[in-house]
Amino acid sequence: MHDELKKLVVKNDTKIVLLVMDGLGGLPIEHGGPTELEAANTPNLDWLASEGMVGLHVPIAPGITPGSGPAHLALFSYDPLKYEVGRGVLEAVGIGFPIGPDDVAARGNFCTVDENGLIVDRRAGRIPTEVCARLTEKLSSIQLPGVETFVMPVKEHRFALVLRGKGLRPEISDTDPQRVGAAPLPAKPLVPEAEETAKLVNMWIEEAKKLLKDEHPANMLTLRGFSADPKLPQLQDIYGIKAAAIATYPMYRGVAKLVGMELLDAGKTWEDEVSALERSWNDYDFFFIHMKYTDSRGEDGNFAAKVRVIEEVDASIPRILKLEPDVLIVTGDHSTPAKLKSHSWHPVPVLFWGATVRPDDVNTFGERACAHGGLGIVPATTLLPWAMAHAQRFEKFGA
Amino acid sequence: MHDELKKLVVKNDTKIVLLVMDGLGGLPIEHGGPTELEAANTPNLDWLASEGMVGLHVPIAPGITPGSGPAHLALFSYDPLKYEVGRGVLEAVGIGFPIGPDDVAARGNFCTVDENGLIVDRRAGRIPTEVCARLTEKLSSIQLPGVETFVMPVKEHRFALVLRGKGLRPEISDTDPQRVGAAPLPAKPLVPEAEETAKLVNMWIEEAKKLLKDEHPANMLTLRGFSADPKLPQLQDIYGIKAAAIATYPMYRGVAKLVGMELLDAGKTWEDEVSALERSWNDYDFFFIHMKYTDSRGEDGNFAAKVRVIEEVDASIPRILKLEPDVLIVTGDHSTPAKLKSHSWHPVPVLFWGATVRPDDVNTFGERACAHGGLGIVPATTLLPWAMAHAQRFEKFGA
Repeated sequence: MHDELKKLVVKNDTKIVLLVMDGLGGLPIEHGGPTELEAANTPNLDWLASEGMVGLHVPIAPGITPGSGPAHLALFSYDPLKYEVGRGVLEAVGIGFPIGPDDVAARGNFCTVDENGLIVDRRAGRIPTEVCARLTEKLSSIQLPGVETFVMPVKEHRFALVLRGKGLRPEISDTDPQRVGAAPLPAKPLVPEAEETAKLVNMWIEEAKKLLKDEHPANMLTLRGFSADPKLPQLQDIYGIKAAAIATYPMYRGVAKLVGMELLDAGKTWEDEVSALERSWNDYDFFFIHMKYTDSRGEDGNFAAKVRVIEEVDASIPRILKLEPDVLIVTGDHSTPAKLKSHSWHPVPVLFWGATVRPDDVNTFGERACAHGGLGIVPATTLLPWAMAHAQRFEKFGA
Repeated sequence: MHDELKKLVVKNDTKIVLLVMDGLGGLPIEHGGPTELEAANTPNLDWLASEGMVGLHVPIAPGITPGSGPAHLALFSYDPLKYEVGRGVLEAVGIGFPIGPDDVAARGNFCTVDENGLIVDRRAGRIPTEVCARLTEKLSSIQLPGVETFVMPVKEHRFALVLRGKGLRPEISDTDPQRVGAAPLPAKPLVPEAEETAKLVNMWIEEAKKLLKDEHPANMLTLRGFSADPKLPQLQDIYGIKAAAIATYPMYRGVAKLVGMELLDAGKTWEDEVSALERSWNDYDFFFIHMKYTDSRGEDGNFAAKVRVIEEVDASIPRILKLEPDVLIVTGDHSTPAKLKSHSWHPVPVLFWGATVRPDDVNTFGERACAHGGLGIVPATTLLPWAMAHAQRFEKFGA
């Protein structure tokens, strides 16, 4: 659809806010009980729902539980089944590394191995980020024939590795065995053309092993998510919007960057994020603002804490409305029911608010209510086109 | 889907009526208020809704505001993103001109230019149709080398121009500068293969200019929407139905003709249209009956007048039911909210009524109510297949 929509774009000075509570969708703990969103006291979100239109979105496809990367791509209107973005690229882009056409990126984890080389801690006791930085500095000295390498700290035990050189291929298997008691695996080519790249990766791992052997607890590493620049169409080219991302976590910043958003200084707290929105209000047409902790508390299985995060976001809505957005969308990227302690496949509540939004007769924001909304139950990829329409940024199709 | 449906078609003597109120969908003027359809007093439509099933349709795709041509194609089950029909062809076909394989058609507007050739009135004061007819008669004398020309009056300042000849190409730019104070533009080829056609068009314009120079106010013309026969699959071939169109406006007659409908004498008023339906009841399986003024009053921004047009249609429902249609569909081609004074992207209310239609629990016909209907929120292209099914005109798929 991007090609069709592109032809219809008109520019104006409307502002669109896409507020994403990660993992927003939930489940009742007990039959007859409320979901997290239904349990939360959300007078502001309910008011938005009563003025606007609600619905549910299906992030990827029926029955599919999304990872955060594909779920956000879908929210940004990119079909994640068509556009695959590797974890390595997300990690690198998320810390501001400009992935280029000759790059292959991997996500790295420092780990702890015993004297037999078997993994005893897959996260090396979550070493402080400063230690991670010292170690990646050390690993940056490794030289590979004909290939440039970049090793960058991300957070705690996580780092990003980028190889840059002509003809490199991303079809390389993960070296993380995904369990303790096993040794890190060698990198294997997944297609014959990737054999040379796999060889280079294994050379790099050998050198890294030597450099790390006297470190503790981070005396080894694993690599996964080898991937190359997905060359996504840019939001400004499709929709003619100048878009900004306000997110504190690297992954979300990474996806936002890949679709052409500028990354704003988001601070650390939700308050900081809303302040960033206020500060940058005049500089962009479109704002993606991301709350991580709905997902984190869902993953923890902490229903009550997830409810509190939703209430924190609700309390900030008046500050956002004071900016007078033309269109405000509130949703999640996927569901993370505390009951399941994990991402899930359940459709995600969404609300649209704005002067041209046709109201439905739903007056609360919750999973059950959203099933009756004027939006219906729609693919996540349709949300941005609807938002653009509500901001009157498309002209008529045909005569 | 047409190819699949075609294999399932069975013939019977059921009758289907597709009643289209152009631009039916609306918006509340003020928050909390009704839409035009919700405000209208529609006892008959509400009764149909209570007996039948309602829903909303999305004419083209999420967020897209349809022109009338593509919106009607979609109602007739043709994906408008796949089948593009130019304005010129619609105009010519709409006045009953049989577009052939060697034809390129354009929509023409008589306009007024000043002594410097700059447009002062893009519609030449909307000259009476009789004047238009005299002028097109005059222009019919223009001779082009190797090409036949047809110049036909449409309505007021509007006319249709058709060039007929081997190798003509429709990829020609509009000559209408779309504003006053500018001169009409020359026709330009949009692909190299269209150079010869553009040259012929410009020769024709030069001759027309000479013939018009002493006329007033229609002393010049502009051309747009150059297009060729889109060669649409015909309704009778897909669905095995003999279909008739009852519409007073050329454009709608044009689209109907292109999909294989016969054009009935629709008269001038809605009363006339319903009379045409009654008169032709025994001669066709499928009737498309079109009310234009819901859209016109929406475009005017006249909420109350749009409400009255809806009420006029409602009042005619008993006459239609007296004919005992097997399936009656009432909908719009798109939304034209008086609040926006223009076509819009909002989904369109639709109702199905008939003996095999499964009732839902909605008892009124309005945007909010339709969001809860048994049909759901569906693409416009699905309506005709549902209607055919309710008329029991498809056999089982598979054993």
